[in-house]
Amino acid sequence: MSLDQELSKAFKQSTIIAGHGKRNVETLLKAFQAVDGNLESDLYGKGKIIEDFQTKIASFLGKEAAVFFPSGTMAQQIALRIWADQKGVHKVAYHPLSHLEIHEEDGLKKLHHIDAVLLANKDRVIEFEDVVGMTEEVSSILLELPQREIGGQLPSFETLEKVSAYCKENDIKLHLDGARLLEILSYYQKTAAEVCELFDSVYMSFYKGIGGIAGAILAGPEPFIEESKIWKRRHGGDLISLYPYIIPADYYFDQRVEKMDKYWQEAQKLARYFNDCSGVTTRPVEPVSNMFHVHFRFPKEKVVPLLIDIYQETGIGITGHLREVSEFECYFEVSIGDQYEVVQDKLPDVFKLLKLKLQGLE
Amino acid sequence: MSLDQELSKAFKQSTIIAGHGKRNVETLLKAFQAVDGNLESDLYGKGKIIEDFQTKIASFLGKEAAVFFPSGTMAQQIALRIWADQKGVHKVAYHPLSHLEIHEEDGLKKLHHIDAVLLANKDRVIEFEDVVGMTEEVSSILLELPQREIGGQLPSFETLEKVSAYCKENDIKLHLDGARLLEILSYYQKTAAEVCELFDSVYMSFYKGIGGIAGAILAGPEPFIEESKIWKRRHGGDLISLYPYIIPADYYFDQRVEKMDKYWQEAQKLARYFNDCSGVTTRPVEPVSNMFHVHFRFPKEKVVPLLIDIYQETGIGITGHLREVSEFECYFEVSIGDQYEVVQDKLPDVFKLLKLKLQGLE
Repeated sequence: MSLDQELSKAFKQSTIIAGHGKRNVETLLKAFQAVDGNLESDLYGKGKIIEDFQTKIASFLGKEAAVFFPSGTMAQQIALRIWADQKGVHKVAYHPLSHLEIHEEDGLKKLHHIDAVLLANKDRVIEFEDVVGMTEEVSSILLELPQREIGGQLPSFETLEKVSAYCKENDIKLHLDGARLLEILSYYQKTAAEVCELFDSVYMSFYKGIGGIAGAILAGPEPFIEESKIWKRRHGGDLISLYPYIIPADYYFDQRVEKMDKYWQEAQKLARYFNDCSGVTTRPVEPVSNMFHVHFRFPKEKVVPLLIDIYQETGIGITGHLREVSEFECYFEVSIGDQYEVVQDKLPDVFKLLKLKLQGLE
Repeated sequence: MSLDQELSKAFKQSTIIAGHGKRNVETLLKAFQAVDGNLESDLYGKGKIIEDFQTKIASFLGKEAAVFFPSGTMAQQIALRIWADQKGVHKVAYHPLSHLEIHEEDGLKKLHHIDAVLLANKDRVIEFEDVVGMTEEVSSILLELPQREIGGQLPSFETLEKVSAYCKENDIKLHLDGARLLEILSYYQKTAAEVCELFDSVYMSFYKGIGGIAGAILAGPEPFIEESKIWKRRHGGDLISLYPYIIPADYYFDQRVEKMDKYWQEAQKLARYFNDCSGVTTRPVEPVSNMFHVHFRFPKEKVVPLLIDIYQETGIGITGHLREVSEFECYFEVSIGDQYEVVQDKLPDVFKLLKLKLQGLE
């Protein structure tokens, strides 16, 4: 077994700190527990289940209309395509670590022939100066809030307002990659609608903080949404039935939309635990959402056995996956959910042990 | 309420003849009834649930490998794209009423820039002569078996063999649109693997005869399938969890794979009932699968009220949707499933009434 597999195995056998629990069929069973079998399926984007949910989320986001997609990958490519076609400019600007740039096998380029202009550098969020300093013409700018791959960092709300105003003046559409939109509202002290007002189109996910099974909403002006439905069919996303994702999305949205502030506070607590260990730093040091990254100033092959020991001694799992930065550094991602409450009483013991073991590495 | 809405409403309130029953949440609940909540979700195409099912269906189809897709639309565009890229010829030949030509908003053209060469005319299936007579170079030919939009007609098996041999000799890939593949095996007296052997790549659906919720399998050679997974991600189809479709697909596959011969025989019986009515003809007259079309030699606005009367008098619903061919003709599609058994004893009365009422239209 490889190091990665051993870590993953030990993690799966423990009670985990982050997220809402293991990704298993229980997530579906719970969401359908109280659903009447006679409830009619949606049918190629029509019907009560899908239409009601779209209306509910459109209104929550303060947008004219919304459409449910099986994935955010599909929703966002389509959004950028519509804006590109509308302006006749097949270029979009986004962060070098955007999901579209690193996780989608270049779908945007290969399927839509849209090129990317990369803003900012890999280590920080996009600032107003990056936008103003752009020399190439683009049809849209995509902002990912929070910027996941750098630990979930955020620009200031003032920056968002300035970027939004600049885009309006310069005929550039502003699209929000809001995969984790709900998770940042507490930090900004804004409603979803107040954030979304700054953007022409918005995507949000239902299996991050919300903890559904899969699926996404794309929201924006009515004609934009109508066009997105045609592209949804072209992509093969206009499934005969999407209710297996919509019903859980709705169920967990209602259950967790009010818990995001709590998750954020717990993320701050957990980050302090980590930062209190020698050779460990969180990124950002003070989380601005329910997520952050934990960096170890030690080689991965030394950290993995140490973590496995802790899981086995305490029964608590910290992460199932460590990523190597260099031969001297590794990190993992944390997103807080319902599990934190389950394990919080055990954390003092877990971190006492972690501190002790890390001292052995120095 | 429009005529269409009235027919649909009356149909929904009746016990239906075709299919496996109403499309409602019960389909999901039944399939998950015996599933353990601890069963781990698939994760972006990995994991036991998805890998086991892919292996099972690949073996059933006699192909090296298979991949589960959320939709056939996505699976087929991707198959044709891979064959097109491989040959460097972005042209595919298929029937003028192919799903790709009429139901996908030109996804193949708009996303993959692949043009279609239309073979045969709208009223009949593709024959060997159509293939040989092609003047344009194509990378692949897609055959849809049965040809749904003309009532589910089939070429002879000998024709398939000749087309397959011709394609091999002429460096043309042969792709099977087998949305209803299981439904034709009885007529050909062949196994799925015997049919699929003639094709380089095969798509089959899990919500037609099988009666699952949604989803499709694409099968073919190992390197082709590996490449299709990259395109699946580009399309936004590589969902974090596809188990809500895979578990029902597997459940209903096991339940119904052996019933296809029965459905075919029942389709033949039901077709005879219709053909026995004056002014009604089925297409084909003798069904070659579980599906056929029913044509009325009367205007739609006269047939609709007549059907609604029958549903209300007998409690049996024949169709929820009539399509207009001309001002003198309309038709609907029938696909036989588990419902036939439920209603068969009532059919003599239903058709007695239908005959009587049709005489009133003459």
